[in-house]
Amino acid sequence: MTHVKNILFIMADQLRWDYLGCYGHPHLDTPNIDRLAAKGVRFDRAYVQSPVCGPSRASCYTGRTVFSHGATWNRVPLPIGELTLGDYLRPQGVRTAVVGKTHMMPDTEGMARLGLSRDTEIGIKISQPGFDPYERDDGLHPTQLLRNKGGTLSYNDWLREQGYEGENPWNDYANAAQGPGGELLSGWHLKNSNLPARVKEEHSETAYMTMRAKEFIEEAGDTPWLCHLSFIKPHWPYMAPAPYHNMYGSETFLPVMRSDEERTDPNPVYGAFMGMEVSETFSMAGARETVLPAYMGLIKQIDDHLGRLFDWLEESGKDKETMIVFTSDHGDYMGDHWMGEKELFHECSVRVPLIVVDPRVQADATRGTSTEALVEAIDLVPTFLEVTGAPSAEHRLEGRSLMALLHGETPKGWRDAVFSEIDYGFYAARETLDVAPSDARGYMIRTDKWKYVHFKGFPPQLFDLQNDAEEFHDFGRDPDYDLVRRDMESKLLDRLINRKNRVTMTDEVVRGAGLSGKSSGVLIGVWGE
Amino acid sequence: MTHVKNILFIMADQLRWDYLGCYGHPHLDTPNIDRLAAKGVRFDRAYVQSPVCGPSRASCYTGRTVFSHGATWNRVPLPIGELTLGDYLRPQGVRTAVVGKTHMMPDTEGMARLGLSRDTEIGIKISQPGFDPYERDDGLHPTQLLRNKGGTLSYNDWLREQGYEGENPWNDYANAAQGPGGELLSGWHLKNSNLPARVKEEHSETAYMTMRAKEFIEEAGDTPWLCHLSFIKPHWPYMAPAPYHNMYGSETFLPVMRSDEERTDPNPVYGAFMGMEVSETFSMAGARETVLPAYMGLIKQIDDHLGRLFDWLEESGKDKETMIVFTSDHGDYMGDHWMGEKELFHECSVRVPLIVVDPRVQADATRGTSTEALVEAIDLVPTFLEVTGAPSAEHRLEGRSLMALLHGETPKGWRDAVFSEIDYGFYAARETLDVAPSDARGYMIRTDKWKYVHFKGFPPQLFDLQNDAEEFHDFGRDPDYDLVRRDMESKLLDRLINRKNRVTMTDEVVRGAGLSGKSSGVLIGVWGE
Repeated sequence: MTHVKNILFIMADQLRWDYLGCYGHPHLDTPNIDRLAAKGVRFDRAYVQSPVCGPSRASCYTGRTVFSHGATWNRVPLPIGELTLGDYLRPQGVRTAVVGKTHMMPDTEGMARLGLSRDTEIGIKISQPGFDPYERDDGLHPTQLLRNKGGTLSYNDWLREQGYEGENPWNDYANAAQGPGGELLSGWHLKNSNLPARVKEEHSETAYMTMRAKEFIEEAGDTPWLCHLSFIKPHWPYMAPAPYHNMYGSETFLPVMRSDEERTDPNPVYGAFMGMEVSETFSMAGARETVLPAYMGLIKQIDDHLGRLFDWLEESGKDKETMIVFTSDHGDYMGDHWMGEKELFHECSVRVPLIVVDPRVQADATRGTSTEALVEAIDLVPTFLEVTGAPSAEHRLEGRSLMALLHGETPKGWRDAVFSEIDYGFYAARETLDVAPSDARGYMIRTDKWKYVHFKGFPPQLFDLQNDAEEFHDFGRDPDYDLVRRDMESKLLDRLINRKNRVTMTDEVVRGAGLSGKSSGVLIGVWGE
Repeated sequence: MTHVKNILFIMADQLRWDYLGCYGHPHLDTPNIDRLAAKGVRFDRAYVQSPVCGPSRASCYTGRTVFSHGATWNRVPLPIGELTLGDYLRPQGVRTAVVGKTHMMPDTEGMARLGLSRDTEIGIKISQPGFDPYERDDGLHPTQLLRNKGGTLSYNDWLREQGYEGENPWNDYANAAQGPGGELLSGWHLKNSNLPARVKEEHSETAYMTMRAKEFIEEAGDTPWLCHLSFIKPHWPYMAPAPYHNMYGSETFLPVMRSDEERTDPNPVYGAFMGMEVSETFSMAGARETVLPAYMGLIKQIDDHLGRLFDWLEESGKDKETMIVFTSDHGDYMGDHWMGEKELFHECSVRVPLIVVDPRVQADATRGTSTEALVEAIDLVPTFLEVTGAPSAEHRLEGRSLMALLHGETPKGWRDAVFSEIDYGFYAARETLDVAPSDARGYMIRTDKWKYVHFKGFPPQLFDLQNDAEEFHDFGRDPDYDLVRRDMESKLLDRLINRKNRVTMTDEVVRGAGLSGKSSGVLIGVWGE
C-alpha cells in the first residue's frame, strides 16, 4: 500500500461535537466540513483525553494520556522527555508546521538543568513543542500579557500592514467592537458577544491562519509535510466579524440541556464547578442568547475558509496525496448542565467532532460513512505514523491507529470504553472543595451504556447513557448501582495500568533482551557447566 | 532544629529483611548493623517499590514509584526528565557520590535527541544518574561484557596494584575459586558457592568499596556530603572469600518456607516464575545448602567492614553530624516458595531491612526502638531533603519523609498500605505466559492484614498475613473473598491515582496560578465591566 504523503491536521478550538451540519445541527450549515465527511469517515463517538485546551492538545501531539505526558493543564510545561508528532515525523523527512494554537509551554526548568538554551535549534523545537515553528499563535493577547512576552506578534504585524494601527491591533480590532460613541467594547466581556468585531472578516484570525496554512503548503512544495492548522476559534473571546456576528438568531439555537434535578444535591465536584463565575454567567437568562450568535458565526466562518482551502487543494491535486483530519480539542458547555466553558465530562464538553479523509483507494469503501467505534484523541498519532510509514512506537503511544477503521476493516479487540481525565487544581472549584493541588483529579470511563466519573476523595458520578442521554440523572451515590460502579472502577484500573511508562526502551528490545543475558556471560540460576 | 550535615546511605544488594541479628536471625550475628539499630530506628515493615535491582534503586534515588520514573527494569534507561538525589542536593552545596552499584542506565536516546554528549559535565551526571561520579561499579563483570564496555574497571586496576594479574582479575579472583588441579571454578556456577574466592578478604569487593567510601568522606572534608555506599553483595555470584565462605553450616540456616500446596494449581504468573531455571535450581535438594553459607558469609563480611567504618566515624566525630541509613534493594527467595532470585511479592523478596540513625537530639527518644509503620523506599528522598533542609518537591515525590517517625511523633494520616510493582517483560515467565511486553505487569498492595497482587490479564493473588504469615494459601481465586479483593483493588486504584505526574510545575505555582489570570488581562466568564 502506498503511504500518505501529506497530512493536513485541522483543529478548531472549543468546538462542540454537535455544532456542525454533518453531525446533525439543524440550522448551522457547514457544507465544506460536511464535504470532508462525505469524502472520509465521520467518527460519532470521539473523545478528548482531557476537556481542557493544553492537556488535550498535548495528547493529540504525543499520543499519550494526560497523566502520562504530564502537561496536565494549560500552563503546565510538557516535560522535556516527551516526544511529539514533530519528533516522530521529522526523521521520515516530513516537515511538521504549526499554524495557530498549540497551548504548549516549554519545560524551561528541564532545559536549564540540561544546559539547553531556548534560542538554539533544539531549544526552539522543544518549545513548539517538537514541531517546526511556522506561525505559532495561541490567540489570547491582552496588551499586558503581550508586553510581558516581548510585545511581538506576527498577526499584529500583518494587521498593521493592512492599515490597522496601534500597539496591539489584536486587542483593538480583532477582539473589540465599537460603541455608539466610538468607544471600544471588549470581546473579553460576554455581553458584547453579539456585536461585530472591528476587524474586517478578511483580516480576522481565522482568515489569517487559513492564509498562512496555504502559504506553508505552497512553500513545502514537494517535501512531505504535516500542517497543523489550529484555529483559535470558536474559542472565547466570542467575537465574530461581520457578517458572521448576526447570522444566527434564537430560532437556530439547539435547546439548552439542563434540568433542575441537576442542582438538587449535586455531586460535590460538579456542584463546585456549577458555582464558578463562568457557570453562573452562562446560567443567567440572556447569556446564551448573546453568545451563541457569535459562537455559531465563528464556526460558519471557519467552514467558509476551509471551503476555499479545500477547493485549492483539489485544484492543485494535492488532495490526492493528503490525509485531512478535522477535529476539536474539547467542546463548550454553553449553559448546558448549568455550566460555562468545559473541564467536566458531560458529552458537550468531552466529546468532539472527528472526520478523517484518507485519500488512498483502500479508503474508497468508507467514504461518506460514519462509525460508532469508541475513539480517542490519542489514536491520531499512531494513525499518522502508520499512514506515512513511520516506525510505530508502541512502547510510548497509548492509542491505536484508526487506519483499519478508515479502510472498512474491523480491528480485533477494539476498546469497549473511552477514557478522559482532568487536573482541576487551577480552578476556583478546587478552593471551594478545599483540596490540595495534587488531589484535584477526575477520571472518566465511558462505555456503550455507562459514563462513570471517579473523583479523588469525592463520590463518583454515574450516568446511564442509554436511558438518559441528557445526563441529568446521577446514580453516583445510589446504593442500587454499587455493582455497576465497581465494574466501572475495574475498567478505570485497567486504563491506568495500560499507561505506557517504559518509554526509554522499545517492546522489540524487551523481547530481544532476555533475562539472563547468557551471551554477555551473566548467568542466573545455573548450577554448573 | 539544626539540619543534618551529611548522609551515609548504605545499601546492601539482595539482602533479605530477616538475615540480620537485629531482625531476629538466630544464628547470623551482625553486631555492627545491630549497633546501628541500637542508635536509631529499626523499620520492621519496609518495602521496596519493585523487587528487582534497577527499578528499586531508581525509586530510592528519584523518590518515585517505578511506573512514574520509568526505569521499569534493570536495563531500562532512567528517562532524561527524571531528577535524582544528586539533582536535589547539589543546589544545597551537598556533594553526592556513588560508591558501588546503582544499576542505572543513561537515557542515551533522549540525550541524543537533545544534542547532549555523555562526555560533558551534564552528560556524566545524567549517566550516574544525577549523582557525582566517584566509584561507580555495578559488580557484574564477565570478561566479554567488560570488553564491550571498553575493558576498564577501577577495581581491576586496584587488584592489579595488589598483585593480582590478568585481563580481568575480578573474574579470575573475586568471582572464582580454585579446583584441586588449580583450575578456576567460577562463581557463576552455583555449585561452587561454598568454595572460597581466590581473592583475599582484604581485597574483596566489600573491602574495596568500604575503603573507597572512607576515602570519599575524607576527601569531602568539611563540605556536606551524601555518600551512597552501595555494596554489590550478598547479591550473586554467591562467592565469599575465606574465612567467610564456611562460617555457617546447615544448623544455622533458617528453615525453608515452602509448601506442596503452593505447587497445586498455582496462580498462573507465580506458576510461570516457579518454572524458570533459577527457581528449579533453588528447589533442588542441596542447592540452599551450597549457597547459604556464601550468602550468610557475605552478610557477615559486610557487617565486619561496616563495624570498622562506624568506629572511624565515631572516632572522628563525624557520626554526630551524619545520618546513617542501612537498607537493601530487595530480598532473595533462596528456595522459599519454590523460587530463586526475587521479582515476585512474597515477604522474603519485597520486604527489606531499613535502619535509620538521625544524629540529632530530637531523635534521642527513639534510639534503639522499632516501628511497624508501613514504609516504602520512596520515603527516603523526602527524608533526606527534609533533614538537610533542602526544599521539598511534593509535586514529584511520591513518598513521605520519615522524620516524624524518627523523632517519635505520630504523623497524621500515615499510609495504611504499601505498594510495589513489577515489569516482568524481560523474564522467561512472560514467554511462558505468552503476553506482550507491555502486558507483563504486576502490582502489590499490602495492608496490615492482606496482601493483594494484581496481575494484568491474570487472576490475582491474595494472602491473609495475619493467619498465614508464611503466605502459603492463596485466596486470589476463592469466590468467598470477592469483597476483599474488590476493596484491595480500590486501594490499588487509589495508589495509581496518587502517582505524581505533573512534574514540571510545583504545587505552590498551581495554588498561585489561579484560573482566569485576571492580572494578565485574560477574563473568563465575565459578563461586563
